[in-house]
Amino acid sequence: MFQRAPTFAEVWRAQERIRPYVMRTPLRHSGALPTSRNTQLFLKLENWQPTGSFKVRGAFNLLMRLSADEIERGLVAASAGNHGSAVGYAAKQLGISNVTIFVPGTTPRAKVDKMKQFGVDVREVGVTYDDAHHAAAEHERMRHATFVHAYDDARTAAGAGTVALEILEQAPDPDMVLVPVGGGGLISGMAVALKQLAPQIRLIAVQPEASPALRDSMRDGVCYQEYTAGETICDGLAGGIGQIVYDVARRKLIDEIVIVSETAVRRAVADFAADEQIIVEGSGAVGLAAVSENPEMFANKRVALLISGGNIDRGRLAEILSEK
Amino acid sequence: MFQRAPTFAEVWRAQERIRPYVMRTPLRHSGALPTSRNTQLFLKLENWQPTGSFKVRGAFNLLMRLSADEIERGLVAASAGNHGSAVGYAAKQLGISNVTIFVPGTTPRAKVDKMKQFGVDVREVGVTYDDAHHAAAEHERMRHATFVHAYDDARTAAGAGTVALEILEQAPDPDMVLVPVGGGGLISGMAVALKQLAPQIRLIAVQPEASPALRDSMRDGVCYQEYTAGETICDGLAGGIGQIVYDVARRKLIDEIVIVSETAVRRAVADFAADEQIIVEGSGAVGLAAVSENPEMFANKRVALLISGGNIDRGRLAEILSEK
Repeated sequence: MFQRAPTFAEVWRAQERIRPYVMRTPLRHSGALPTSRNTQLFLKLENWQPTGSFKVRGAFNLLMRLSADEIERGLVAASAGNHGSAVGYAAKQLGISNVTIFVPGTTPRAKVDKMKQFGVDVREVGVTYDDAHHAAAEHERMRHATFVHAYDDARTAAGAGTVALEILEQAPDPDMVLVPVGGGGLISGMAVALKQLAPQIRLIAVQPEASPALRDSMRDGVCYQEYTAGETICDGLAGGIGQIVYDVARRKLIDEIVIVSETAVRRAVADFAADEQIIVEGSGAVGLAAVSENPEMFANKRVALLISGGNIDRGRLAEILSEK
Repeated sequence: MFQRAPTFAEVWRAQERIRPYVMRTPLRHSGALPTSRNTQLFLKLENWQPTGSFKVRGAFNLLMRLSADEIERGLVAASAGNHGSAVGYAAKQLGISNVTIFVPGTTPRAKVDKMKQFGVDVREVGVTYDDAHHAAAEHERMRHATFVHAYDDARTAAGAGTVALEILEQAPDPDMVLVPVGGGGLISGMAVALKQLAPQIRLIAVQPEASPALRDSMRDGVCYQEYTAGETICDGLAGGIGQIVYDVARRKLIDEIVIVSETAVRRAVADFAADEQIIVEGSGAVGLAAVSENPEMFANKRVALLISGGNIDRGRLAEILSEK
C-alpha cells in the first residue's frame, strides 16, 4: 500500500505535519569550499537535524500517520544507524514506547548507545544492512509488528521530500540539486516535489563507486533491491535500492546519476571540516565529491548540495583529516 | 572616548543595527555531551556565524557607527585571526575598501588567506598578538587611520553583548552562562546586558591556565593589558585583558572566574566533535572544560555555554580527535 512514490500533496502535507519536530535547516552559501569554473555552492545542512541526519523527516512523518492499532502492535525497523536513531528519537518525542531496531553487528557503538538512550530495543544481527533487514522483516511477520521502512515507503519518502520544499523557499534559483542515494527514499520524495514546482532544476543522484546500485539498476532494467557493496566510508549508501526510487528514476524524475570515488569523498569530508567547519559523514559528502570530480559539468552553475548527515566516527574523521 | 563599558542602551541598539548581517545562532540543548550530576547544557553556537566566530557582531557594530571621515582615513586592526576575518568580512559587506590588518607571523595560513579574500591588506609582524597590536597602533598614529579594536572598545563590546539578548530570548531560564575570556570584550558586553535584564543568572568567565590574565588582574589589583601566555590551544584567549573588562569585573558584573587545564580543553574539543558533531576551536571549548573539571559547581543547574568560534586548524583537530 505504501511501496509507491509519494504524491506531491503527500509531501506538501508532510511539511505541516512534521514542522513542530524537525529543524528548518539553513541553506548556506559556501564562500570557502574549493570550486573551479565559477560554480556556486549552497549547502543544505541536514546534518544539523536532531540525531544528525535528514532521517528524522521521514521518521516523524511515518510515525505520525500510524493508527493506534499499528502503534499498539509495536514498531520494528532495520537500520545501519541514522534511520534507527531517527525512529528512536521520533518515537520518544511522540510517546511511543515499543520500538525494536535491528542493526548490523558492524554498527558503531556510539550509534547503538544513542538508540538505547531513546529507549529502543536494539538487536545486533549479521554484518550488512540486508542482514538486519531480513531479521526485521522476520520479526514483523512473527510478532505482527508495524514495519517502519528506512526508504521504501511513501510516508518515509514524503517526509524526506519536505527538504526540497525548504530549498525552493530558501534558494535563489539553483540550477542543480545534488542528492546522495542509498535506498533512494530521500531523492524520491525530493523528485516529486521539485518536478512539480520547479521542473527546470536538474536533479542529480550521487552514489559511491563501491555501491552504484541505482546506476546498475537503470542500466540493466532490473531493480537491485540487494547489492553487494565494496568497501566504502559511505556506510549509509551501501546496498540495494528501493522499488520507489527505481520507479521514480524510470519516470525520468531524476536527470542524471553521478558516481564518485572513495578518494574524492574522503577529500570532501576533509574540505567540509577545514573550510566550512562542519562535520559531514561520508554519505553526506558525495555531492561535493561529484562537483570536484566533474568541474565542467557544474561550470557557471548554482548548485545546491544536500548534506544528508554528520554522524561520522571520531577515529575515522581524525584519519581523514590527517590525509593529504 | 570608547574605552569604557557599553551602556545597556548601546547593546540594545546594536542588536537592531547588526541584525541584517549576523546570524541569530541557535541555542541548542545538548543531550549527547557527557555531564554528571544532572547538569543541563545549552550551546550558543556562535561558531556558526559568518567567518566562524562571534567577532562579526562587534565588527559590524563598530564599523556601522563610523563616520564617513573615519572610513575615508582607512581602517586598521590587530588580530590573531578571528577579529581580522570579521573586520574584513564586515568591511566587504558594507563596501569599505581600505582595511589593513596586522597579524602575528604565527597566524595559520588559512586565516591569512581568508582575510586576503575579503580584500584586506594583511601585514604579518612578530609572533604574538601584542606584537601585532603595537604595529597596528603605530600604523594608526603614522597614517591617522581609524583603529578597530578587537575588544577594548564600547562599540565592539556592545556588538558582542547582543548575543546575551538572544540567549535570554531563547533560553528557558539558564542558571549560569559561561563565557571564554581573552581580551574580555565579549563578556563585558554580555555582562552589561545580563545584569540589566536577568541579574539572577550567574555569569562565569573562563580562561585557560596558560593565560589567566583576568584572574591575576583581579588578584593583584592591576589591569594586565599585556600578559605572557604559556603554550595553549586557545590562541584566541592568549594575552592580556582590556581596561573595559577590568572595570566590569571590579564592578562585580562577573560572578566568578574559572581556570581550565589544557587537557580538559582538548577533551572538550574532541567531545564536541564526537558527540555533537560540531567543530569548536580551543578558545570556544573552555566552557565545557570548566563544567567537566568542576562537576559539583554545576550540579542540577541549567548552564548555557557560549561557543565562541570554530576556526581550528585541520591538523590540530585531527591530532585532538586521535587522543584518548
